[in-house]
This record gives sequence, structure tokens and C-alpha cells, in this order.
Amino acid sequence: MNFHGGQFHRENVIDFSVNIPELEYPEGFEEVIKEALLQMRKYPDIDGLASKNVIAGYNNTEVDQIVLGNGATELIYLMSRAVDIKIATIIQPTFTEYERALVQNKVDVRYYHLEPENDFKLDKDELVQHLIGTNSDLLVLCNPNNPTGTFIEMDTIEYILLGVQNKKMKLMIDESFMDFVSDYRFDRHRDRLNALMKSHSILVIRSMTKNFMIPGIRTGYAIGSNKIIAAMNKLKEPWSINALALACIPFLLRQNNYLDDLRTWCHGELRFMLSKLNAIDQLTVFDSTANFILFRLDIGSPKEFMSSIIDGGAYIRTCEDFEGLDQRYFRIALKSREDNNKLIKLIMEALK
Amino acid sequence: MNFHGGQFHRENVIDFSVNIPELEYPEGFEEVIKEALLQMRKYPDIDGLASKNVIAGYNNTEVDQIVLGNGATELIYLMSRAVDIKIATIIQPTFTEYERALVQNKVDVRYYHLEPENDFKLDKDELVQHLIGTNSDLLVLCNPNNPTGTFIEMDTIEYILLGVQNKKMKLMIDESFMDFVSDYRFDRHRDRLNALMKSHSILVIRSMTKNFMIPGIRTGYAIGSNKIIAAMNKLKEPWSINALALACIPFLLRQNNYLDDLRTWCHGELRFMLSKLNAIDQLTVFDSTANFILFRLDIGSPKEFMSSIIDGGAYIRTCEDFEGLDQRYFRIALKSREDNNKLIKLIMEALK
Repeated sequence: MNFHGGQFHRENVIDFSVNIPELEYPEGFEEVIKEALLQMRKYPDIDGLASKNVIAGYNNTEVDQIVLGNGATELIYLMSRAVDIKIATIIQPTFTEYERALVQNKVDVRYYHLEPENDFKLDKDELVQHLIGTNSDLLVLCNPNNPTGTFIEMDTIEYILLGVQNKKMKLMIDESFMDFVSDYRFDRHRDRLNALMKSHSILVIRSMTKNFMIPGIRTGYAIGSNKIIAAMNKLKEPWSINALALACIPFLLRQNNYLDDLRTWCHGELRFMLSKLNAIDQLTVFDSTANFILFRLDIGSPKEFMSSIIDGGAYIRTCEDFEGLDQRYFRIALKSREDNNKLIKLIMEALK
Repeated sequence: MNFHGGQFHRENVIDFSVNIPELEYPEGFEEVIKEALLQMRKYPDIDGLASKNVIAGYNNTEVDQIVLGNGATELIYLMSRAVDIKIATIIQPTFTEYERALVQNKVDVRYYHLEPENDFKLDKDELVQHLIGTNSDLLVLCNPNNPTGTFIEMDTIEYILLGVQNKKMKLMIDESFMDFVSDYRFDRHRDRLNALMKSHSILVIRSMTKNFMIPGIRTGYAIGSNKIIAAMNKLKEPWSINALALACIPFLLRQNNYLDDLRTWCHGELRFMLSKLNAIDQLTVFDSTANFILFRLDIGSPKEFMSSIIDGGAYIRTCEDFEGLDQRYFRIALKSREDNNKLIKLIMEALK
């Protein structure tokens, strides 16, 4: 079984290992869910056409550029299965399911490593050389990247595609945490991606479970170049998106105010936590644009550090399963100011 | 996209194309769902261990003989993907997703046809000869079979496995409609299957969406031989079963009274509808053990027949997409006595 956050269960322990915020749901959401529950006796719409229409409008794309997913995960696996890929480059460290999905489908996976010395920042020319050198026909980008929180600008994405020149190289971009980025201008970003999709083979995955705080319901979608979407829909298993997940989509994609508040909250807590963590000598803290922060313990035993945190009533994400990281690295999700303060206190106590 | 029932949407039309009963939910079920909704902010348990423990108890098996599924569909596709199969025999006509799943995984699919002249009954010796002759390493059984409603006794299953002799031949049994069979003795059936799993490679798929009337929530499981289950769990995508689906399992598997009532209801409506339909000269009606009935229109235009039914306010399942059937065949789900009576009236009017 896989190794992920959210698997530590003990009473009265605050779980910072899962990247789900703890805000109020948008007004009216409970009613939408209750209404949707009345539909549980029916099969979910096999095409999800009503939801796809809303997604198309929101993303300014055609309906046949959309595939629905049981969270981002189904979409990652479905693309890996449906599209002919021989060699894939994954930028490490990143979410481990990309590699698992690709390897299951006999793809030769190559790593391009980001280095902590460079704050896990991408060197675009180096990456282009790597892609050409390995003859990769897929590049996977997680943007912002889990677990580092680093963000890749659209300029960089365009530069990479231009540099590689091979128009057959496909691009999978997982934007599951995009709505947390504070200076993210959705319409500009979206329109540039839409334009790129016309000349390149691109899939953009948008989980709705993190930004809208519904990992238990499982919903998401991808938009992409027509050929990729057609290949994915051809293999898609019927009814994988449950009736509640389908019903949420039209409501949630209207919640612009909620998303504004989410970005404001994330920006505020990021600044707060980054400044607090940066003030602690024993840690190297990596800048982030998402609702989580990666740091490294430079002095002392990671195991004792972790034990002390748990004993204090919190759990944080160990990172030794991420390629390129080791047991000195930890990832923490942003929570309420009260909980965040408590975690800072626990970290400082653990390092005394 | 796939062709299935439940895709005709018009106001005031009773949909007999979907095999979901319309009974009351078991007492307390709404509360379980409401309670589970409070968990939507959390990721569903990645192992689903609590639910697996309940399933193991219910089925008298070990936990590592269980894999959870997003309905039966995920399990059909996952087995097709995870287990090495070269040649599969599918008994036709049957549910179309088995073939789609196997063909996606490059399995050579052979048909063994049941004939309407024999009431779609299985000739077990002929089937054994077919399996040996084709060198099949997988046999797919839908029991009771969709859309014919025919039931295969455990004696027959044991006879087939004994006859084929090749212990490497795997068996996938989809029991999605088993709980509707009126003289079905679950514990005996289960114990005999469990015993067979020790000497043969068997997967038994149990959707919980039909018997418990929750196709919108998507839940189900499979039990099987350890090697098959291990192979499936190795490839299983994380979090495919949503939090509501997981939470339902322990509650629903305690509802023995509900299942007794379900069987009694199904038996009663089956007898009623079979006698009414059998009295109509223009139809050949096939006996069924499940909550649906297949019949053939022997005289007149199927298209005009269908139009007349729709105009009268009901929709029934056309069957031309089932291998071995054609546009003269129709499948109807059992509904309330009032609706069933209405359908009989509409059928008789259409044939006047």
C-alpha cells in the first residue's frame, strides 16, 4: 500500500500531515450536499455532461477537452494508461503517485532532481537539456509542487516547450494546489494554457478536493488537448465519479469569493509560518506558494524530533519516501493560526 | 462512451431500464450517511481497514482476501489489469463491461453463447469442452446473469472447475445481483466458495450498489484467492472509495432483515410480473432469479413497441448492445406493484 499523509490516527493529535485547510465551507454548500444525497438511489450520470458544461465555461474550453476524475488520482493513472508514453521525466522530489502510475504502465521513468541548495528551484535550461538528452516524451509537472511548494511560471513552461522543440513531448501538469497561490491570476494563466494546448499535447489536472476541502467526496477534472482527452475517455471506467461529487462541481466552480478568501488566508499563514520557522536556527526552511511548507532539520535526531512533536500533540509529514529527500525533511500543512502557533511552540520545544 | 441503462431522461417517465429497487432504506441508514458526511473534509482511509474487517467477518474470510471497490466496475477493471490472463471466456449475453475491461488489457476474449431456445440455460459439459478447447485461463460468470436473470448453482461451478482440470484457469464471478435470489442460502454458498478459493484462483465481486440501492455512492468489494487479491491491491489506485461509501459498509452488512425483505419483495414481484408477461402471446419471456426480466417481442416492430411504451410514460432497456441479443429483446427492472402494473398495461396497449 502507498505511503501518504493523513495515516496517523491518535486522539487529540493535530494532524499537520494532510494538506487540507480548515476553513468554513462556502455558504450554501451543505444544502447542495443534502440535495445531492437524495440522488444516491440513482446511478451518477455516466457522462457527467451537466458538470462538464460548467467546467468548460469556467475554463473557457470545449466540453470535449474535459475528463472528470475521482480526485486527481484517477486522472493521473488514466493518462498514464491511455496515452502512449515511452520515457517520462519526473521532477523530483514530488508526489509519488506519478511514478507509480507510469511504472504500472511500463513507462521508463527518468528523474530530474531539484536541489535543496537551490531552494528546489528549477533551472529551465538544464531541464530542457535533460529532456532532449533523455528523449522524454512526457514531462510531469506538479505546480505548485508537492512537497516543496515551488511554483513554475507560465513563462517557464512556454520556455521549456519551446526549448525542447519536439512537439510530440507531452506535458502533464498537476495543478491540485494552484488555487492556494496568492498572486495567481486564474484567467490569464488559463488562457495561456488553453492556447498552448492547441499546439502541444497537454493535460492539466485540477483536483477539487484540496481547494474545496472535500477529499472524502473525491472530485476533480482535467482539461487538455483533444487527442489526450479522447484517449482518456476511451478507457475511462463508467460511474467512477459518485453522484455527490458530480453535484458539487457546478456549485463549487461559482465560488470566486471563497477562492479569494482561500488565497488570502493561505498568503497570511504562509508569511506567518515562514517567518516563525525561518527564525529557528536548526531548520532550513524552503519558500512555498501553497498551503504547506517543507523544512529540513539540520541538527539533532529527526526521530527524537518527531517523537517530541507527537508527544506534544501534533503530527507532521515525514518525507523519506520522497525521491531526493530523507528523514531530516518534514512537511507541514497550514492550519488555523491557533494550531499553527501551537506547532511552532512544539517545534521550538523539541529543539531545546 | 458506454451504452447502459438509466440514460433516458424525461419528466414523468418511469425508468424500468435501471435495476435498482425502490424500497425504503434500512432504518438508521440516513443517520449513518449524515454522520459520514461530517468526514468529507478528511481523506478516506487509504486501506479501508475498518470496513475490510467487517467484510471479512461477514464473509468468513481473512482481511487479506478482500479488495474494496468503487462499485463492481473498478473491481472488474482492476482484476483484468492486475492478473495475467491471455484467453478469457465470457458467457454471452452478459454485462458488457467484462469484455471492455479485458480487451483494454489485451486479453483474447472468446464467447460461449447461451441460446434463447434453451432459455439461456447453461450446458455445463458443453462449457467445459469450450474452456478446454479454447485453452481459456479465465472464465467470467455473472451470477445471476445480467440481462437474462439465470442463476448458476454452486454444484455447477464446482462441476466446471473439476471438468476443466486446469487449476490455472481463473474464475471471476460477479455476484452483484446475488442478494435478490429468493432461495439463496448465503452462508452455505459463501462457505463453499471460500473452500474453492483455497484450491483455485477465484475472485467474487460483490457490488453493494444494487442490493442496498446506492448506485450514486459507489461501493462494493471482492473476496478472492490470496494471490489475486495481492495482485489487485498492488495496482489499486489510492482513495478510489469515497468516505461515505466506506462508512456505509459496516452498517449495511448488518442488515439481515433488510436483505430478507428484499428477497421476499423480489420473489413476489418476479412471480407477479412473470405470470403477467407470460400471458401475453406476442412475447417470449425468460425466467429470472433477479430483480429484472428479459423478454423478446416475437411479432411486430420493436421500434413501434418501444415508442408506444415511452409515449405511455415508461422506459425499458433495449438490448441490442448485448452480444447475442437484438432489438427484439427488452429488459425490465422490477419496481413497485403499482408501477409494475402500469408497465404491464402499457405493454398490452402497445401490442393491441
